[in-house]
Amino acid sequence: MKNKQFTIDEQALLEDIMLHRRDIRGNNFLGKPISDEAIKKILHAASLAPSVGFSQPWEFVIIRDDKIKKQVYENFVVENKKAQAIFSNKQQEMYKQLKLEGILEAPINIAVFYKPSDTPVLGQNTMLETGEYSVVCAVQNMWLMSRAMNIGLGWVSILNPESVKKILKSPADNKLVAYLCIGYVEEFFSIPELEKLKWKKKKQINSVVYSNEYPEAISNT
Amino acid sequence: MKNKQFTIDEQALLEDIMLHRRDIRGNNFLGKPISDEAIKKILHAASLAPSVGFSQPWEFVIIRDDKIKKQVYENFVVENKKAQAIFSNKQQEMYKQLKLEGILEAPINIAVFYKPSDTPVLGQNTMLETGEYSVVCAVQNMWLMSRAMNIGLGWVSILNPESVKKILKSPADNKLVAYLCIGYVEEFFSIPELEKLKWKKKKQINSVVYSNEYPEAISNT
Repeated sequence: MKNKQFTIDEQALLEDIMLHRRDIRGNNFLGKPISDEAIKKILHAASLAPSVGFSQPWEFVIIRDDKIKKQVYENFVVENKKAQAIFSNKQQEMYKQLKLEGILEAPINIAVFYKPSDTPVLGQNTMLETGEYSVVCAVQNMWLMSRAMNIGLGWVSILNPESVKKILKSPADNKLVAYLCIGYVEEFFSIPELEKLKWKKKKQINSVVYSNEYPEAISNT
Repeated sequence: MKNKQFTIDEQALLEDIMLHRRDIRGNNFLGKPISDEAIKKILHAASLAPSVGFSQPWEFVIIRDDKIKKQVYENFVVENKKAQAIFSNKQQEMYKQLKLEGILEAPINIAVFYKPSDTPVLGQNTMLETGEYSVVCAVQNMWLMSRAMNIGLGWVSILNPESVKKILKSPADNKLVAYLCIGYVEEFFSIPELEKLKWKKKKQINSVVYSNEYPEAISNT
């Protein structure tokens, strides 16, 4: 076979990076600044992601301005209050204790957008979401590269995407896919925080794998 | 700082894996079988992906049965014919030359589904898509791990997701996120095939990065 071959040790290292990747929140970010060089490296990882029809439909707004972060944070506060209400009493108590974002604490925020193409995209016909999905692949590359650089990244989803678009003066047809907080950290937890707090159990992979087709008992649920 | 620190060389290796990852089609897969151990390793990488509220909303159907692959392939043929029609004459000529899937050639197909939760998910309120996005993060982990294992992976999107769900007897509320073809390959191309064929140019990352907010000239497009 032609081309680059990776070794068993290199596979194991990739697994190690995946295993140590964590979602980082504001109680864990350090103030230490992130260099332009580091941001460039993280964005380069994004640019290596797969994309439907090689459309590369991603756009990035890098936010360092505290006034803009503040506006986004205020939207989080509003939406987080609404979000709490959907949980039952016991879960709600735990929810209120959780720090769920690091917008103000992280030196860098990055809003990641999907920009739809004006012209037809190869492969994006029956499954239009593949455009957004390409952007998500770029985010996962950014996340893994940040971890390999010992930099923390947190994905904040408790935001009204239309409000964030307004704050960032996004073109109307762009879609906010992810809002990321990036910075050096105090600690990468050994397991996900929600697992540690027993909010949710880790699923056994065997419990979500089927052979050839869904078995009848599952199909009819 | 506590916890695992990665080195510059380890960061460079991750970048190298990202750089050498390719979308593989049927003219490139070898018949050589994929071991259960290898599949297990790829699925383990999926299970290490981030997910909104630690919901881990992914399900995998591993397809080895040729009769089922054939049904999926027949759906591809129908949808690909429709898809060709949306391109202008010159592009259509090139489109017809392209091999865009490897359903029958790849020893393993994996259909990756999003299974919505019956109960509220932390962080999945204002941006419901974060459930599907979690599944896409899992797919990108699978893709990178496959490449590190020198195994090719191709994502087929020219399928009618409802037809594929029917073929695989999927529960009605599951959503097909990705249909993957996996196998050893003849070659990993040095650059993406659509870039090599000048279907689309590689974007310069600087052309899609903005500082703090979109500039006025872009906002109003």
